[in-house]
Amino acid sequence: MHRHFEVQLDELKDRMLCMASLAEKAVHLSLEGLNNRDESKATQVIADIEPQINDLHLELDDRALQLLALQQPMAIDLRLITATMKINSDLERMGDQAVNIAERALSIMALPQVKPLIDIPRMAEIVEKMVKDALDAFVRRDNELARIVVLRDDEVDHYRDQVFRELIAHMIRDPRCIQQALDLILVSRNLERIADHATNIAEDVVYMVLGRDIRHHAEEKALARNEKTNSHN
Amino acid sequence: MHRHFEVQLDELKDRMLCMASLAEKAVHLSLEGLNNRDESKATQVIADIEPQINDLHLELDDRALQLLALQQPMAIDLRLITATMKINSDLERMGDQAVNIAERALSIMALPQVKPLIDIPRMAEIVEKMVKDALDAFVRRDNELARIVVLRDDEVDHYRDQVFRELIAHMIRDPRCIQQALDLILVSRNLERIADHATNIAEDVVYMVLGRDIRHHAEEKALARNEKTNSHN
Repeated sequence: MHRHFEVQLDELKDRMLCMASLAEKAVHLSLEGLNNRDESKATQVIADIEPQINDLHLELDDRALQLLALQQPMAIDLRLITATMKINSDLERMGDQAVNIAERALSIMALPQVKPLIDIPRMAEIVEKMVKDALDAFVRRDNELARIVVLRDDEVDHYRDQVFRELIAHMIRDPRCIQQALDLILVSRNLERIADHATNIAEDVVYMVLGRDIRHHAEEKALARNEKTNSHN
Repeated sequence: MHRHFEVQLDELKDRMLCMASLAEKAVHLSLEGLNNRDESKATQVIADIEPQINDLHLELDDRALQLLALQQPMAIDLRLITATMKINSDLERMGDQAVNIAERALSIMALPQVKPLIDIPRMAEIVEKMVKDALDAFVRRDNELARIVVLRDDEVDHYRDQVFRELIAHMIRDPRCIQQALDLILVSRNLERIADHATNIAEDVVYMVLGRDIRHHAEEKALARNEKTNSHN
């Protein structure tokens, strides 16, 4: 029984790596499609990769639930399995965002180019790094790397605001480019959401490794509560 | 032990209802703030309700994990607990979307009104109904109602596209209203995401009640596979 559990858990981990690499690939190709006006890459995300992500999403959930139901795992394994379920859901939604970017890329390609992309590729670079690091942190159980990912989220929000301001100014100066500028604003929102999912994954990794919840600044709050309690003693 | 498990499970359900009602309230108030240019309601979402949602989000996850770890529940209880974890995460993200709408509402209030809102309130009405029905379906274990929610998602996407086209046309006609129109486009995206979360919740309810996965059209695909297999026999 115990041996069987180990085998199933290893299978879950293996399939999770496939899922992670598919999601990462979807994000990467959608951005290449956008940056290089490459229709085939955008289409590949929509027609080929996202359906694979969806199938694997269901398969992984099913495997995780089977493990929970049949094997009644304890402590660290339980945290691994529940973290896998959460990360699985974030990866699937990352795939959805990649599809949105690919669709925007196709829409942008159909119109004349407004101006060379500058901020979006920079933002994309940070976001792709966050995704990569969050997934590396998961694979290597590296909670320090996971914490670095969480901290980078503000940087992405900063770029999102900058892209927004610049493109609004651009639209006001030249209303003929409203459609293209809007597409780019929406791409920046998709990137922001991908960064949010990477952040969620990183937070789940910290929880998985340390059993410590760092979401919503829970740690700082707990610390503050403890200090308050201690000062009363 | 068994008695204790029932008590803890009931507590989990109770707290889940609080979470659901807070998320519903956040969405409702943010939309009232937007529709009535009511600053106090928008501020209430940001300063008062979302922090409560965040606290409850962590509490519920913790309770669910405790139940999984200590009580080793089987079948239907296991599905209830894992569904609760997933729905909890969708409700928390719904709260984030409500905050975004509240922030857009405040930005819109600070500028002169462009035109009376028509499509957004209609879209909002459908989305609010989806949220309500998804949560009712969860409480009443009503998989039929849950399926109705899933079907309504396309209607929301239709409104999102309509709002997008209309507001682009509006921006092109009158570039002075670009900022306000953009805010409204982003609100329509937030509404779309809230509808997505309601759909996720409804899908989890069907799984919880029937043990059947209807995400990504898994049911139709399984049916198609069976028919194919049968036709080969």
